[in-house]
Amino acid sequence: MAYDDTNIFARILRGEIPCHRVFEDDQTLAFMDVSPISKGHALVIPKARARNIIDAPPEAIAAAAVTVGRVARAAKAAFEAEGVTIMQFNEAPAGQSVFHLHFHVVPRWVGVALKPHGGPMEKPEVLKEHAERIRAALV
Amino acid sequence: MAYDDTNIFARILRGEIPCHRVFEDDQTLAFMDVSPISKGHALVIPKARARNIIDAPPEAIAAAAVTVGRVARAAKAAFEAEGVTIMQFNEAPAGQSVFHLHFHVVPRWVGVALKPHGGPMEKPEVLKEHAERIRAALV
Repeated sequence: MAYDDTNIFARILRGEIPCHRVFEDDQTLAFMDVSPISKGHALVIPKARARNIIDAPPEAIAAAAVTVGRVARAAKAAFEAEGVTIMQFNEAPAGQSVFHLHFHVVPRWVGVALKPHGGPMEKPEVLKEHAERIRAALV
Repeated sequence: MAYDDTNIFARILRGEIPCHRVFEDDQTLAFMDVSPISKGHALVIPKARARNIIDAPPEAIAAAAVTVGRVARAAKAAFEAEGVTIMQFNEAPAGQSVFHLHFHVVPRWVGVALKPHGGPMEKPEVLKEHAERIRAALV
């Protein structure tokens, strides 16, 4: 299906909507999910126009995945997480709700269940502080 | 944590255990999950020794992710799936049970729930036929 550049992540990439930025390079951007399913839940997107992994060019997928690894390592360290779950949804029946390719980076702890996807928005000051913690742990 | 090369995916890579192969290149291997959580559930692994995304070198993550995209496109076409969910678990608290970096490629359909992870093994003849269908759809 076609790429719709009014999606919210395209608007974040154009600077039309703010985000709590974690990492940025030429090809990718990482920022906090505003409705986190766990503490420190971040998103990684390529800057390339891609609806999801089905239509994305290999270079965009590769660049995003490398940033996912960096952010996962940093988030695990920043929040002393016991694990990290990566999820990436393609098309609505698979769980996709924003139609720009994105990877969820979700810190995990034993006995702490994930919150439902699409739950309440986190306070901006919490997201800001979490973004700062991940940024400080990036290597 | 250290890489343990007695894990089952390392044994598959060494040819000590068979698999229902979907795709292989210099850096990656894709094969059917023997306990699929949906029809056509495949796994993608790098050939590099990596426990998970936390310790994997960027080149291994990038190569695996590109193969994930290829396999996801092929599986979506092969099974006329309505979506594809990608999952990648790092450490046991995040759902990891085999300690060699792997990505789950899970075809999805509206109204069809995923089976529990670690469920019963699929019949070899079904896995063989599903691998053939994905291979035939690779582009």
